[in-house]
Amino acid sequence: MTTTATTLKGQPLDRQTLDAMLRRRLFFTPAFEIYGGVAGLFDYGPPGCSLQANIVDLWRKHFILEEDMLEIDTTVLTPHEVLKTSGHVDKFADWMCKDPKNGDILRADHFVEDVLESRLKGDKEARGEKVEEEDDPKKKKKRKTKAEAVKLDDAVVQEYEEVLAKIDNYNGAELGELIKKYDLKNPATGVQPSPPVAFNLMFQTAIGPSSNLPGYLRPETAQGQFLNFAKLLDFNMQQMPFASASIGRSYRNEISPRAGLLRVREFLMAEIEHFVDPEGGKKHHRFHEVEAVELTLLDRHTQLAGKTDVKKMTIGDAVRNKVVDNETLGYFIARIHLFLQKIGVDMSKVRFRQHMQNEMAHYAADCWDAELLTSSGWIECVGCADRSAYDLSVHAKKTGAPLVVRERLDEPRVFEEWQVEIDKKKFGPQFKKDGKTVEAALEATTQEQREKLAKQLTDNGELELEVAGVGNGTVKVSKDLVKVEFRKRVENTREYTPNVIEPSFGIGRILYSLIEHVYWNRATEDGGDEARGVLSFPPTVAPTKVLIVPLSANKQFQPFINKISQKLRKIGISARVDSSSATIGKRYSRNDELGTPLGITIDFQTVQDSTITLRDRDSTKQVRADEDTIVAAIQSLVTGAKEWKDVAADLPAFEGQEVDVTVR
Amino acid sequence: MTTTATTLKGQPLDRQTLDAMLRRRLFFTPAFEIYGGVAGLFDYGPPGCSLQANIVDLWRKHFILEEDMLEIDTTVLTPHEVLKTSGHVDKFADWMCKDPKNGDILRADHFVEDVLESRLKGDKEARGEKVEEEDDPKKKKKRKTKAEAVKLDDAVVQEYEEVLAKIDNYNGAELGELIKKYDLKNPATGVQPSPPVAFNLMFQTAIGPSSNLPGYLRPETAQGQFLNFAKLLDFNMQQMPFASASIGRSYRNEISPRAGLLRVREFLMAEIEHFVDPEGGKKHHRFHEVEAVELTLLDRHTQLAGKTDVKKMTIGDAVRNKVVDNETLGYFIARIHLFLQKIGVDMSKVRFRQHMQNEMAHYAADCWDAELLTSSGWIECVGCADRSAYDLSVHAKKTGAPLVVRERLDEPRVFEEWQVEIDKKKFGPQFKKDGKTVEAALEATTQEQREKLAKQLTDNGELELEVAGVGNGTVKVSKDLVKVEFRKRVENTREYTPNVIEPSFGIGRILYSLIEHVYWNRATEDGGDEARGVLSFPPTVAPTKVLIVPLSANKQFQPFINKISQKLRKIGISARVDSSSATIGKRYSRNDELGTPLGITIDFQTVQDSTITLRDRDSTKQVRADEDTIVAAIQSLVTGAKEWKDVAADLPAFEGQEVDVTVR
Repeated sequence: MTTTATTLKGQPLDRQTLDAMLRRRLFFTPAFEIYGGVAGLFDYGPPGCSLQANIVDLWRKHFILEEDMLEIDTTVLTPHEVLKTSGHVDKFADWMCKDPKNGDILRADHFVEDVLESRLKGDKEARGEKVEEEDDPKKKKKRKTKAEAVKLDDAVVQEYEEVLAKIDNYNGAELGELIKKYDLKNPATGVQPSPPVAFNLMFQTAIGPSSNLPGYLRPETAQGQFLNFAKLLDFNMQQMPFASASIGRSYRNEISPRAGLLRVREFLMAEIEHFVDPEGGKKHHRFHEVEAVELTLLDRHTQLAGKTDVKKMTIGDAVRNKVVDNETLGYFIARIHLFLQKIGVDMSKVRFRQHMQNEMAHYAADCWDAELLTSSGWIECVGCADRSAYDLSVHAKKTGAPLVVRERLDEPRVFEEWQVEIDKKKFGPQFKKDGKTVEAALEATTQEQREKLAKQLTDNGELELEVAGVGNGTVKVSKDLVKVEFRKRVENTREYTPNVIEPSFGIGRILYSLIEHVYWNRATEDGGDEARGVLSFPPTVAPTKVLIVPLSANKQFQPFINKISQKLRKIGISARVDSSSATIGKRYSRNDELGTPLGITIDFQTVQDSTITLRDRDSTKQVRADEDTIVAAIQSLVTGAKEWKDVAADLPAFEGQEVDVTVR
Repeated sequence: MTTTATTLKGQPLDRQTLDAMLRRRLFFTPAFEIYGGVAGLFDYGPPGCSLQANIVDLWRKHFILEEDMLEIDTTVLTPHEVLKTSGHVDKFADWMCKDPKNGDILRADHFVEDVLESRLKGDKEARGEKVEEEDDPKKKKKRKTKAEAVKLDDAVVQEYEEVLAKIDNYNGAELGELIKKYDLKNPATGVQPSPPVAFNLMFQTAIGPSSNLPGYLRPETAQGQFLNFAKLLDFNMQQMPFASASIGRSYRNEISPRAGLLRVREFLMAEIEHFVDPEGGKKHHRFHEVEAVELTLLDRHTQLAGKTDVKKMTIGDAVRNKVVDNETLGYFIARIHLFLQKIGVDMSKVRFRQHMQNEMAHYAADCWDAELLTSSGWIECVGCADRSAYDLSVHAKKTGAPLVVRERLDEPRVFEEWQVEIDKKKFGPQFKKDGKTVEAALEATTQEQREKLAKQLTDNGELELEVAGVGNGTVKVSKDLVKVEFRKRVENTREYTPNVIEPSFGIGRILYSLIEHVYWNRATEDGGDEARGVLSFPPTVAPTKVLIVPLSANKQFQPFINKISQKLRKIGISARVDSSSATIGKRYSRNDELGTPLGITIDFQTVQDSTITLRDRDSTKQVRADEDTIVAAIQSLVTGAKEWKDVAADLPAFEGQEVDVTVR
């Protein structure tokens, strides 16, 4: 499934040119490169770091501040027992194979996918069909040998295609069977790899000097939030619902990291755990605010039918029609949509894909991923899952901590029912080691059984109960040890374990996908061949907001540079001065690549009348006004209060060319 | 050495009361507490998390934005080879002993310190002297047995005191000798522990599926910055000097974490690496801006004399008098001082302590720590070191990467000198395996030697050179293989390895010390005994800026609450509403503990004339005005543009009491 990626302006996206540009401008770079690098580890340079900070800042405002969430900051180091309870020690694994000849470690699903795709490609060639150029670098790199042009039976082609469509759903044994059935061989050696074994993806370490406390680097921030639930509920003065949130790094020891920032071993996550009462349909009091938001949905049923046709639907309709399970889940899906829009993602390249039933954890009620289309295909960037009460329940059970909500009932609930009352003092001596078992059996009786037992006690002075494993399996209990009576019980409080709706953001994946979405090429103005790359970040997320360029190195310009720099710094707007000797055009071009949305030129007219020009990156149009007017315009653009067209309508256009200084 | 800590108002600081308050308000909490906790790991709750974010935000503005530093974000996972080169694998260790009886692991220096202090205390008791109550919880906890009242010889007392004064300077063997000499026993078992062995403080893990790439969690962010030096220099268009900066977590597997946030295993650091030309005295072009800043200095000479008397001195004088090594180091020390002041640290509890010669790494030129006085004594919160060219040099040497600056010289440098020119083609065949050795020996000759060798070539047609390990130790080289001539050499560029000035901030330590510095107790207004805790954070760093309290649950107040909340949110100011049924006084008191600087009350007058009151946390004074005026006042207080006294002077005071609503 080759995706032909396009730029913001619909041009074919050349991944290699983009990668080269991002490296040249130091958005990110392989970590430890002078030591040969480590797969799956990347450092962010100044523009990448600033872009990341701006995305996180908008995230914090959009979610945490807007909804009064409780932000916490928990540790990455996590002891074994916690992740054993959460299920990660046993289940957080990928399947890996080993090549017995050269020792290559292969991720089993990727291996199967790769070899089958290669065979299908060879088949196409043999049939003389056009084979699309593989523009997906992750596949280019992965595939070690060229596809051989071998024609396959039509039935085999169909079989392979079906396997590929379901590739995410096979377990280790099934992947092993596929490897045997189709005799899949490692292209590097021509040898069939060993059967898949589970490889746990957590980085392990030992905490403390005696190495007796095994621990892991967390694979998600969620667990730290669950463990603090009771304290957070207290902090929130017992008010429900509420959400906690965490922004921090998580770690996955990927078997074969690839595709740049899209599959890495250390990454920044932003996660929300919204705790909600499971009763009452999981309503959300602000749902009406987002009801009309239209989403692109790829639901479970469509996928089951082997299709990828998306549906446009408002979230209101989606919840009403039960496409999305409940209001709270729907509310967050819509809020995720609005967030992606706000940071500048191309919304025609976004879809929400529902997890298949077998793709979800068994406890999950529903789960939708926000997927962004990139040159590596559709990439899961945000997950939004209803985790039910699973996590709080398992931790509570393991530790005995009351991870529950106790709610005072407005009206007490009255129950009339058969109750069992055991005289424990007498019970022990009578039944010895079996005491607890008999007690438990009595407590476990149903209302119907109890009614009968009460009658036995009245009639016979004792009751008879079947208790497996005690004596001959039938136990008699006399009426001085137990009472069974019909009584009234009043509950003034209700106790429940909240359900959790979890929107979980992979910041690095969002950041990279965003870069692809805002990237395009500008034809050079002198008609040259060289494509000029532009990153059209919205001003709110752009790494640097303003470029300040003096027309030349003339000393007269310096006081104006200083003054405008200080003014911008004072209102917290990041600006950079480029006084280099390059032409103004070149200097702007450099900053197009950095995605700097605004440019200020200081020229000889500035010296005369203190006016400066402001340039819009995307249209290259300019306006001219006095310093304070321009600073105000910049502030309104950077905060998102205005768009360029508003500024262009307000201020006089400036038609000066981006002339080379040597021309004057 | 018991420190009697005091609050902001000079009251005795009761650490236990403060700790209880911080836990109650969820500033921070032991991580994994429901699983029994892990020593040295803490989670930040909402107020702690927000306080941390505000400190980091101010740091970013004060350093990165103000000085155009290049912020980067590098990985925590670090391969073995990098930290082997940096020296951390071999030297980043503490000394630990093991109790052979119960397996206790003891940090050797802490153990010696603890037992000797305990003996000194016992001596005091035996002499009938008053023993100060140990109000330092880290010591309370550490000491497992009560000091026995045994009188010591005066000479022994003096010896112990001398040992304690130098406790940071002993190596493992010396600590082992002290343990033997004074027969120090683990109070828990009465047994002498084993001799100290080095324990490396880095957390180890394995990267990748085959476990063949050992790695560590970084102990500092610095290395990631050094490895990116060449790329950063490029990004900065080859301009020197420049600084990079990183904010991120680092890890130290402490042997025995203690003292809450002051010695933890996972912590947030903010580090700057300022790269400077080592020639020309390491001047700084903005030094004049800080020259007059007065600092409290504890220099090396004072400490050598066994004293702790500080000197007040401007940084200008300190650099002029060579107390501080150079301008750039001095500039950053002053900037650190200003930063601490800005976030609200009590500057009477700050000193800059110079490292002793044997305390510094051997390559460091000078190093000063900003120490903050807390109930645990003077705590190192910021280090400011001149690391010379050490790090860049060792990484360049190991990898061959050119971590240097090449500078075009304004005036070419002309050297007239004896030069050796080797004909390498002929050299190899002639000397075979010794070729390289002989070449190196020739290249290593001095100017004087070369002059003589040139004469030999002219006179004899060959030269004679001593080369250890080749033949009989003397080698002859004929004139067709080598030329030695007096020539002119012109250098147009200069190449050098920059020196690094490194200000390094422990954010958690700063955060905790700040809390102690701004903490005080307010007498209850009704004359009750219960002390009311207050945290007087400056508005700029306070976790929440504004508390909004309606006088009662009356529904009329709700629209006013919503309106003011939205207005504040729109300008990015965090506010919290407390509509609980507690009295206004109680609600304000709760927020005094959270350090919320401002309070808004909405009462019946608000409903009539739309005015609201604004309350100052520290003075409890109130003013009253219309909504927009109050919002503007809040904004000026939060950004630091105004102080309360300015607001109080501008707006009419409101004398209403903090009445209990039930009174009305």
